[in-house]
Amino acid sequence: MELQWTKIFLPEIKELIETKDFKGLRDFLRERHPADIVDILRELDPTERVMGFRLLDKNKISEVFTLFEPIEQEELLKQFTEQNAKDILVEMPPDDRTQLFDELPAHVVEKLLKLLPPLDRKEANELLNYPHNSAGRIMTPEYVDLRMDMTVAEALERIRKTGPNRETIYICYIVDETKKLRGVASLKNIILANPEQLIKDIMNENVFYVHTTDDQEKAAKVVQKYDILAVPVVDNEDRLVGIVTVDDVLDVVQEEATEDFQRMAGIQKIEEEYFRIGFSKRVLNRISWLVILVIAATISQTILKTYSGVLSSVIALAYFIPMLTGSGGNTGSQSSTFIIRALATGGVNFREWWRILLREFKVGAMLGLIMGLIAFTIAAISLKQITLPLTVAISLCIVVSVGNIVGVAIPLFFKFMKLDPAFVSAPLIATLLDATGLVIYFEIASRILATATP
Amino acid sequence: MELQWTKIFLPEIKELIETKDFKGLRDFLRERHPADIVDILRELDPTERVMGFRLLDKNKISEVFTLFEPIEQEELLKQFTEQNAKDILVEMPPDDRTQLFDELPAHVVEKLLKLLPPLDRKEANELLNYPHNSAGRIMTPEYVDLRMDMTVAEALERIRKTGPNRETIYICYIVDETKKLRGVASLKNIILANPEQLIKDIMNENVFYVHTTDDQEKAAKVVQKYDILAVPVVDNEDRLVGIVTVDDVLDVVQEEATEDFQRMAGIQKIEEEYFRIGFSKRVLNRISWLVILVIAATISQTILKTYSGVLSSVIALAYFIPMLTGSGGNTGSQSSTFIIRALATGGVNFREWWRILLREFKVGAMLGLIMGLIAFTIAAISLKQITLPLTVAISLCIVVSVGNIVGVAIPLFFKFMKLDPAFVSAPLIATLLDATGLVIYFEIASRILATATP
Repeated sequence: MELQWTKIFLPEIKELIETKDFKGLRDFLRERHPADIVDILRELDPTERVMGFRLLDKNKISEVFTLFEPIEQEELLKQFTEQNAKDILVEMPPDDRTQLFDELPAHVVEKLLKLLPPLDRKEANELLNYPHNSAGRIMTPEYVDLRMDMTVAEALERIRKTGPNRETIYICYIVDETKKLRGVASLKNIILANPEQLIKDIMNENVFYVHTTDDQEKAAKVVQKYDILAVPVVDNEDRLVGIVTVDDVLDVVQEEATEDFQRMAGIQKIEEEYFRIGFSKRVLNRISWLVILVIAATISQTILKTYSGVLSSVIALAYFIPMLTGSGGNTGSQSSTFIIRALATGGVNFREWWRILLREFKVGAMLGLIMGLIAFTIAAISLKQITLPLTVAISLCIVVSVGNIVGVAIPLFFKFMKLDPAFVSAPLIATLLDATGLVIYFEIASRILATATP
Repeated sequence: MELQWTKIFLPEIKELIETKDFKGLRDFLRERHPADIVDILRELDPTERVMGFRLLDKNKISEVFTLFEPIEQEELLKQFTEQNAKDILVEMPPDDRTQLFDELPAHVVEKLLKLLPPLDRKEANELLNYPHNSAGRIMTPEYVDLRMDMTVAEALERIRKTGPNRETIYICYIVDETKKLRGVASLKNIILANPEQLIKDIMNENVFYVHTTDDQEKAAKVVQKYDILAVPVVDNEDRLVGIVTVDDVLDVVQEEATEDFQRMAGIQKIEEEYFRIGFSKRVLNRISWLVILVIAATISQTILKTYSGVLSSVIALAYFIPMLTGSGGNTGSQSSTFIIRALATGGVNFREWWRILLREFKVGAMLGLIMGLIAFTIAAISLKQITLPLTVAISLCIVVSVGNIVGVAIPLFFKFMKLDPAFVSAPLIATLLDATGLVIYFEIASRILATATP
């Protein structure tokens, strides 16, 4: 089957709904993968959506529900009877349930928790107690555990018995009587071993793990670095309490990239989906940087005021201000994007900072030279003289070189101070370069114009 | 074991090398995970690195080599004897070998291909023939295949026999005599089934697959959407030729995010590592956008020239140009970052474009109001008058509102035209807004100042 595009199904579904052919709709949905059912239901309006849900096979309902985003789950829950909600919640994987509860208001969570059987409720409460974005918060307690003195045959028996309810059976963890993590064995190793061998002889004692309170990014790093399907999560006393699987890691990687994008544009961290964010939160998340930048722009105003003498004698100097400040900012945001991403993905190492600065100096000078030549040509044609175009060209060349170096130097400095370089936003660099660029421009202008018109 | 930090080991290693304690070094490396050995070797200088390599256990050499980046592998290969190189290449997983060959100059690849045994050589040649960034190029032909008429016990026997050399044994593919893909069975399903059952009765016939020539992103999407450990790759005649596993998908996701980052900063796509990119390529990748922007800035020059009358009568108008253009650009790059990322990760749906525009209009107006008030206060204090500050405040409010909407509207328009919204770079939006902002500013200024000084 190829990747399914919902659009292809949509007319068929709409017709089934319009003609009230519920049997046809039920059969249609039965054939589809849960991930595709989610896409289809998303295209329907709310009442049709609930209707579609009701037509799903019982064992598929919870699977489909789980694939919706927490905010959509909240909407759906409102439409369900208490019994429906209970059935779904009990069947949901514990890590996805935590994500849903994270999203809901406290009083709703309390009500829903009461619907769960005592053991599930206890587990849900424990997971909700771990800090936001921690490994504990995204882990699932549904793993396969084995004992050291089991034979391979016994282990396989246990995997067959407990496996159906586990998030993964491909990685099994070996614990002792106190639940302390002692080793790991992949199903591959178990399958390939002799049935009489003891688990302790085929297990790997060097298990990489994270703690419940570690950041989720650390769990993602371990899974990526050691190329494993899941990382075990232990509590303060080294007891195994859950695992974080590779599919959760994919989500974390996606989320972290989004965070970096937003930071670079000077937006504070936002975890919700686009339409979920309220008006005041949207404004608040963006205003702080913008206000800082408006205030920082006072520097540019002061600089221009200082040079108002030169400016009023040659008013044409003002024409090139947007181009100069813009080019410095653009070059700086290019070079900072490069270095921030390279530092984040490990493409460069901080200790090579001098090599990076040297490279960027050369590249910046070349970019400045080319841009200066072009600007000179344009200005000379437009103004029909060469003194001012020369001023603009020299300034542009210097501004671009400086912008390029500053764009690299600030993130490197952040890294040196052990701060996250991704906090350096493109607007910050652009505003800093506005002021620098203006000083360079007017200093050069005062000199050249003074020589030209003695 | 916790995530290993190389720094902790480094002094110990450096000492082992200095005291020439090769036995100690060998024992030390034997205890380490290949991913950590890579990190350690990276910290050593080239001669130490090759020495460290020679001390590795034979079966670990190829595993460690594979984990290096292709460019580092190239460096290492130069230091190896032909026999060393051959041993390593033969042991390398085919997909990683393709990546290495991708990086090497054609004549080196030709030489290395000759070192491979005929079958491996044929396979390597086939993989190298698929287009860049295609599913065929990143797949591995090392999967487990089963037949429909096998029993579960026979299937397990086959998995035990072929498994050790396979990239994964957790997903097995069922093919017919012509190698056509007929179904899929997870090891979980096989393990949990009755040994006498037939594979055709437990397999899932609805296999999601991609074609060899499909983009690697499509393979990544299928793995992410359907939450599977690998996606099978078929040729034009639907014959199974390889699989793409979830670890490769993690790399693709990372790579695509980097590409989007670079595009947003107006940098052309770069696939190499930072230090790998030559001087002229670095300049060429960045210059095109920068030159376009310098030329586009001619619009701003023309606008300022048009308003030179107003400007020379009130020279102080020039002081606020950087703040106005900067604020418009910053707001626009914030809102475009939001929408581009949300469109890329599926957080918003294009069909809700009117809802998005409405939301952003409201948010932009509020941001503009707040920023206008602050700018008014600052300008009034600095200039000790209110006509000009009022002009600046009103202009800023409008420029920010417009900037916010434009930042969202352009990516949405790209999406509507079926172009990738990530091609809209922040510098492009900023330059467009520079010109718009200046017109708004001077139009308002001409009116207010004309009224104030009749």
